[in-house]
Amino acid sequence: MSNRAISKSVIKRLPVYLRILDNLIRRDVEIISSKELSNESGFTAEQIRKDLAYFGAFGTRGTGYNTSYLREKIIKIIGLDKKTDVIVLGAGHLGTALTRYNAEKNPYVNIVAVFDRDPAVIGQDISDVPVLPVEEAPALIRDYQIKVAIVTVPADEAQGVVDMITAAGVRAILNFAPAKIHVPEGVHVFNADLTIELQSLIYYSSAEDERFYRLKQEKLDKEKAQKS
Amino acid sequence: MSNRAISKSVIKRLPVYLRILDNLIRRDVEIISSKELSNESGFTAEQIRKDLAYFGAFGTRGTGYNTSYLREKIIKIIGLDKKTDVIVLGAGHLGTALTRYNAEKNPYVNIVAVFDRDPAVIGQDISDVPVLPVEEAPALIRDYQIKVAIVTVPADEAQGVVDMITAAGVRAILNFAPAKIHVPEGVHVFNADLTIELQSLIYYSSAEDERFYRLKQEKLDKEKAQKS
Repeated sequence: MSNRAISKSVIKRLPVYLRILDNLIRRDVEIISSKELSNESGFTAEQIRKDLAYFGAFGTRGTGYNTSYLREKIIKIIGLDKKTDVIVLGAGHLGTALTRYNAEKNPYVNIVAVFDRDPAVIGQDISDVPVLPVEEAPALIRDYQIKVAIVTVPADEAQGVVDMITAAGVRAILNFAPAKIHVPEGVHVFNADLTIELQSLIYYSSAEDERFYRLKQEKLDKEKAQKS
Repeated sequence: MSNRAISKSVIKRLPVYLRILDNLIRRDVEIISSKELSNESGFTAEQIRKDLAYFGAFGTRGTGYNTSYLREKIIKIIGLDKKTDVIVLGAGHLGTALTRYNAEKNPYVNIVAVFDRDPAVIGQDISDVPVLPVEEAPALIRDYQIKVAIVTVPADEAQGVVDMITAAGVRAILNFAPAKIHVPEGVHVFNADLTIELQSLIYYSSAEDERFYRLKQEKLDKEKAQKS
């Protein structure tokens, strides 16, 4: 990736802003300050001002950003101004849930097909999206010039499937398979590792401060013991 | 959260380190440098050294970190040294996929029960985890002192379910419902918004540099027009 390209962390924040703006516009809110955007998103107001200025969106001091203008700007930057065709690999529970949700609720994407190798599901459809045999994926990717795929196959099948779809032209993969996958240069992968989120969360489930101070105390005790 | 507590971003990186270390240990790798950890994780070596030093783990200059020692340290910090009891709300496709995966593949958690309100699924089980009526959740949370829940119910049911489980004692929620939920102070929520990941990815599916330069050019043209 060229060093002049937009950083990955900025690109991850833009859809968060977009969702907040969508909600604000639905509630007829016309102006939002970077401070309010900060409250809603959890990013600092400074970070937000920096991100938005980078794209040429400047708030008015003392008032804020025009929500509709900002939304249009972000939609254009991400490339959501027309529906993006997406395919799903794997029609298991996760593939089915993601297909259903995106087909019914996500206005920015068009789920073209789901691929599986199980004859029991091939030929069915999920929210009107057809489930096709996985061998047919490359031809469809080429015909429809599909660039985005969601991979939900088992870990041991992930690399094979990814090799196949990237060879056919897929350039961006949202990977739910708990496996490290390798892709050709120029292909982007986001690993949506649901286990990792859960483990971070477990940290908060116990008395975090208590544990932190216990560990800190252990460290201090150890240092003391080494000194004496 | 106290300002002396560990920051959320650090807590999100620890499970990533843990997964890398698990893989390295499986391959009998005993030492890893911060540079190698950087290649595997995508975080900068500087960030990694900072994170780990914060917990009292210091690499040996020129060699690196002992993988087993570091793994034990991280497991202890996150609180994964004993299995954490977790419940799942919603036995739809996503709830089923998450229950199955965690019950079968995640060594750090114990999925105690799945709750749903659909009589057609109540009484069944998912990877040996029972599906129970949602009204029974509070009693089970109290009896088993459950602190962690995964919420996969529809958006319009999410707040009601969250109010119920937090009143019963849940302190940490992984929320997959595409809704902003409100929780009492001291309860942590991670929003696993699968749409947001997908939208970030769409950015990369088109010629990103091309789009960036087009937008930049438009901005320059506009500035020029204003000047003249």
